[in-house]
Amino acid sequence: MNEQDLTALVNRSLFADLGYADPQGRMQIRRVFCTWHKGLERHLISTNTSSGHVKSLLRRPDACLYFADSQVFEGLCLTGRAVVHREMEWKQLLWHEQDVKYYPLGVNDPDYCVIEFIAESASYYRFDGKGELTKEKIAASAADAVFEDGYARLMKGGKAP
Amino acid sequence: MNEQDLTALVNRSLFADLGYADPQGRMQIRRVFCTWHKGLERHLISTNTSSGHVKSLLRRPDACLYFADSQVFEGLCLTGRAVVHREMEWKQLLWHEQDVKYYPLGVNDPDYCVIEFIAESASYYRFDGKGELTKEKIAASAADAVFEDGYARLMKGGKAP
Repeated sequence: MNEQDLTALVNRSLFADLGYADPQGRMQIRRVFCTWHKGLERHLISTNTSSGHVKSLLRRPDACLYFADSQVFEGLCLTGRAVVHREMEWKQLLWHEQDVKYYPLGVNDPDYCVIEFIAESASYYRFDGKGELTKEKIAASAADAVFEDGYARLMKGGKAP
Repeated sequence: MNEQDLTALVNRSLFADLGYADPQGRMQIRRVFCTWHKGLERHLISTNTSSGHVKSLLRRPDACLYFADSQVFEGLCLTGRAVVHREMEWKQLLWHEQDVKYYPLGVNDPDYCVIEFIAESASYYRFDGKGELTKEKIAASAADAVFEDGYARLMKGGKAP
């Protein structure tokens, strides 16, 4: 898979699997809605501040983020760290009107926050082989990019999930 | 979710996400075909002995196994350990004729092995709440069970994935 194939996999995914260590040091996985990306390096996830994964990531930010397509047997596992943002600029960026059903107090709801996952290494596989990306290559993929919402793009194109 | 709901989630899943630590200590996730179960405690995965996840699990068996259904927002994360079986009894149990396309030497292929994942704790969530299962409860779910192939059952019932 080349960088274009990997970007296509990330862009057509609505969900990713977030891996983290819980307070007992056990590995945990949680599926998250993840459609905001900046190259292959940075990914945004809106979630509940009170959730087990946010609490765990505030203690230990090491994490991985996995995009996979079971139908065609391909996957990309990014390893790196997670930053929990509670500043309004991040919260407003990802906010949708309908999110009020999850966060009754709206965009100001203290239970609403944004996880930024920052990749430092990557491994991928497909039927035709596997490989890795260096930290430099991953960073370069985001250098001239801005955060974009793949969900909005999918909706615009009329391709409902 | 009660135990019956959790069992139903596991039984209708064809894939699970296996979380493990790589030789650098970084968390990694790999999607695996996982349809053999014994209660909620034990799960079998046929895979390549030469794969990164098998090599990593032989060094450090701590792992997690995650079953999730994105459509209905429910998930079960089992934490525990993985045992890599290379004995013929395990390999024969999971072998299908068509596996020869992945393992050209057949059931004896040294690159073919079986991972047994053994759960020791579990956390789950659904729209109506989240919870945990004790090690005792997980073990009890397998006490009177035998390994069964959910894929064979799905095929029998005429419900192709």
